[in-house]
Amino acid sequence: MLKVKRVAVDTTPENTVFLSRGCSIYRAEEFTALKKIEVISKAKTILATLIIADDPQIIADDELGLAEPAFRRLGLPENTLVEIAHAAPPASLDAIRDKIDGAEMTDDEIEAIINDIAAFRYSPMEIAAFLISSASFMTTDEVLALTHAMTKAGATLKWDLPIVVDKHCIGGVPGNRTSMIVAPIVAAHGLYMPKTSSRAITSPAGTADTMEVLARVDLRIDEMRAVVENEKACLVWGGHVNLSPADDVLISVERPLRIDTREQMVASILSKKLAAGSTHLLIDIPVGPSAKVRTRDEAVRLRKLFEFIGDRTGLILDVVMTDGSQPVGRGIGPVLEARDVMAVLRNNPDAPGDLCARALMLAGKVLEFDPELRGGAGRARAQELLDSGAALAAMERIIAAQGIAPKQYQLGEITTEIKAVRSGVVSAMDCYRLGRIARFAGAPMDKGAGLDLFKKIGDKVSIGDALYRIHSCFKSDFNFALKMAEENSGVTIDAKVTSDEAVG
Amino acid sequence: MLKVKRVAVDTTPENTVFLSRGCSIYRAEEFTALKKIEVISKAKTILATLIIADDPQIIADDELGLAEPAFRRLGLPENTLVEIAHAAPPASLDAIRDKIDGAEMTDDEIEAIINDIAAFRYSPMEIAAFLISSASFMTTDEVLALTHAMTKAGATLKWDLPIVVDKHCIGGVPGNRTSMIVAPIVAAHGLYMPKTSSRAITSPAGTADTMEVLARVDLRIDEMRAVVENEKACLVWGGHVNLSPADDVLISVERPLRIDTREQMVASILSKKLAAGSTHLLIDIPVGPSAKVRTRDEAVRLRKLFEFIGDRTGLILDVVMTDGSQPVGRGIGPVLEARDVMAVLRNNPDAPGDLCARALMLAGKVLEFDPELRGGAGRARAQELLDSGAALAAMERIIAAQGIAPKQYQLGEITTEIKAVRSGVVSAMDCYRLGRIARFAGAPMDKGAGLDLFKKIGDKVSIGDALYRIHSCFKSDFNFALKMAEENSGVTIDAKVTSDEAVG
Repeated sequence: MLKVKRVAVDTTPENTVFLSRGCSIYRAEEFTALKKIEVISKAKTILATLIIADDPQIIADDELGLAEPAFRRLGLPENTLVEIAHAAPPASLDAIRDKIDGAEMTDDEIEAIINDIAAFRYSPMEIAAFLISSASFMTTDEVLALTHAMTKAGATLKWDLPIVVDKHCIGGVPGNRTSMIVAPIVAAHGLYMPKTSSRAITSPAGTADTMEVLARVDLRIDEMRAVVENEKACLVWGGHVNLSPADDVLISVERPLRIDTREQMVASILSKKLAAGSTHLLIDIPVGPSAKVRTRDEAVRLRKLFEFIGDRTGLILDVVMTDGSQPVGRGIGPVLEARDVMAVLRNNPDAPGDLCARALMLAGKVLEFDPELRGGAGRARAQELLDSGAALAAMERIIAAQGIAPKQYQLGEITTEIKAVRSGVVSAMDCYRLGRIARFAGAPMDKGAGLDLFKKIGDKVSIGDALYRIHSCFKSDFNFALKMAEENSGVTIDAKVTSDEAVG
Repeated sequence: MLKVKRVAVDTTPENTVFLSRGCSIYRAEEFTALKKIEVISKAKTILATLIIADDPQIIADDELGLAEPAFRRLGLPENTLVEIAHAAPPASLDAIRDKIDGAEMTDDEIEAIINDIAAFRYSPMEIAAFLISSASFMTTDEVLALTHAMTKAGATLKWDLPIVVDKHCIGGVPGNRTSMIVAPIVAAHGLYMPKTSSRAITSPAGTADTMEVLARVDLRIDEMRAVVENEKACLVWGGHVNLSPADDVLISVERPLRIDTREQMVASILSKKLAAGSTHLLIDIPVGPSAKVRTRDEAVRLRKLFEFIGDRTGLILDVVMTDGSQPVGRGIGPVLEARDVMAVLRNNPDAPGDLCARALMLAGKVLEFDPELRGGAGRARAQELLDSGAALAAMERIIAAQGIAPKQYQLGEITTEIKAVRSGVVSAMDCYRLGRIARFAGAPMDKGAGLDLFKKIGDKVSIGDALYRIHSCFKSDFNFALKMAEENSGVTIDAKVTSDEAVG
């Protein structure tokens, strides 16, 4: 038997183990063909990818090295004795092979696959096999089974309440931080909204990154429950609460492969909401030429799939399509976006009007889920709660309940302004490009990095006017972002349109 | 800039690098979302998968750790200064995304993908994406483009000869070591046969493993060329000669995923042969209920694809379907199979007749490629070269030219006999099961491990007769194999058939 050794490397989310080529008990090379082994202890068995090591400092001949995720999941102290064995690929892979050949997967097959994935029994290449085989076609019944399986594969929250609301935007539009305004409005009204969010993956800020400027977001599930029970809403990071954990594993492969199908998106979003115990959900689909969904037709197909799965899982679901043609608000990046959100909640006269209007529209639709509210009165009720300061007070209570951010984040002090190269009217803003520039500037890793927009579509500009300011915390990031903005600022100025009438 | 450090771990075939979480120059976590980074030196840039390390013994804050494959491919000494950058997925992945959506890949797209794979720019999950997207459908034109691209992506051998023959079996039948008999017969006749073989991947012995019992097989390409120029044939391992290297990378993912499509098999085999400079090729497709190809219909479809690609790549190709219903010869495992091969070449009276007959049939077909031989005379010529000892002499010259095996391998001394549990007639032998038992016994890692078969289909047995003997070198392997054989020996005895007439 081999002695467990903790190897301080982070192979998240994959289980990885190290075995010495000179291992005195097992012949390491025997295990290389399939790369995957089973680590067997009395208490628990895990599957892991094998790396052979030739350095006794990393791993001695009678040891088995476990990288951090594997060590954590095996959950045994160092020097515990374990055995290893050949690990056949999970049996659920057979269904994926059938799927490649054109078969439809049964509910049981999908459940077995998702349970294996949630238990980290799939290697990245096996996860890719599942994603790609499903990406070419997936029936609505398969999407439904996938949603059910993902929901069941992790923790679930139950609330003893007739209505638990949520609101989700599929993303792709920088600055679109409406959840941080909708949640306190909804809480102030008295509905429950246990909101979990992701951190930015490829965007310059996620709701979790932005909320983190104001409050702790890495709550455990029991802490999250306590916040919601007391304050009716929360705005926490989904990473620690273990809702639909298979989704997190799938995303770790979807992201580098840039595979993002409608079917997988719907199952991913709805499984998280169902696991969180939501009964009513508003989905926001921004549509625009540089957003995630580019045409109305595409948005309608996506809406129908959301509705189909929503109906069959008992989730009452409303879908709204919003303008995704340009960023929302002025700031892009956590500190700047938190500034905009708080300006709206504080009713500051210079708060971005587009962010405020959109948040009120969405909050109004969420409030319409309340049977006690007169039909059509949601928008006005949201406005009332914002104007009265009730929403701000709710936000302050949520922040206090989650815990005030342990550190104060400052805006990046290395700045420059990107100027208009011609006079005219801003005719387009590239959401993807502006997001990328903000990311190169350091967002979301540096919360103070990002872009502060001075112009939006329809604004008249003169040559030399500042279009936006780049904020960075580090010179190297600043230079990357500046170079990118100089190549293509992401802002299109139409020189020919000069009269107000011609501007749409 | 970071200092290169060699980290003695083997992540073959993948490039893997380690960066300290506390890195003083780059923020390691910034690179985790996409997992892949570019390592940039003045001389060369490689792509690698990133692992974050938290142990200064593994990697210091100003170092970049390169696992063996990455260190070798970057080719720079330790402490060389390098930069790192975000690595976008290879551009060729776009074609794979289109393929998932149902598009056909162009020749250029396939070439770009294969070049990226051969240059180790694809991670395992990206390779899986390519394999799975192609597994659901692939046109014959795509297979042709894939074959061309794989051939061109590595070294190629040119022979200034009108005829360079080869012979390839698609595998799946234990003991089927005909190449080691065909090659010396062909060389004795005077044709050139530069044969490269793989080591066993999931089987108990490959030709390379078996030849290694007699001779060195890990020749470099220049050594291989010298052997062929002097002795007309060789029997070497393909692993060091860099013919169609993309194939080796693809196999490293196909194998654990057990994805083995007709299209990928044909491109894999033919690209190796074309790169080796073969002009004429005999393909052996064993067909049997427990072989790789299970029905004649399947074999015909495979044959047609081989012929289509052969014709369009200028390879003269003949396909023969053989009996794959049971193992060939008596031994399963390198030492035992080498024994059978040498018994045939030495014309030993107890040499396995089925192996001899099959090798002569195949050698005859290869000899028919010689325009100077009278049509239909191949089989007789092969018999003549075997009977006269010319084939044995050629084999001895090939062994001497490659270099006699530096060590003599002994048959495993831990043995037992698996006995018939009833009297009757052997009606079926499960190739897959017997191969698995031989593998558990230790083959091909222990060359002396394996099975020695005493009965074949049609043989009468009495209860208690030995069906085969298991040979192992280690007690633990022996126990695994024995347990498996006791569960199901892989040999079916039909008790009802007792008269000779009833045996087909």
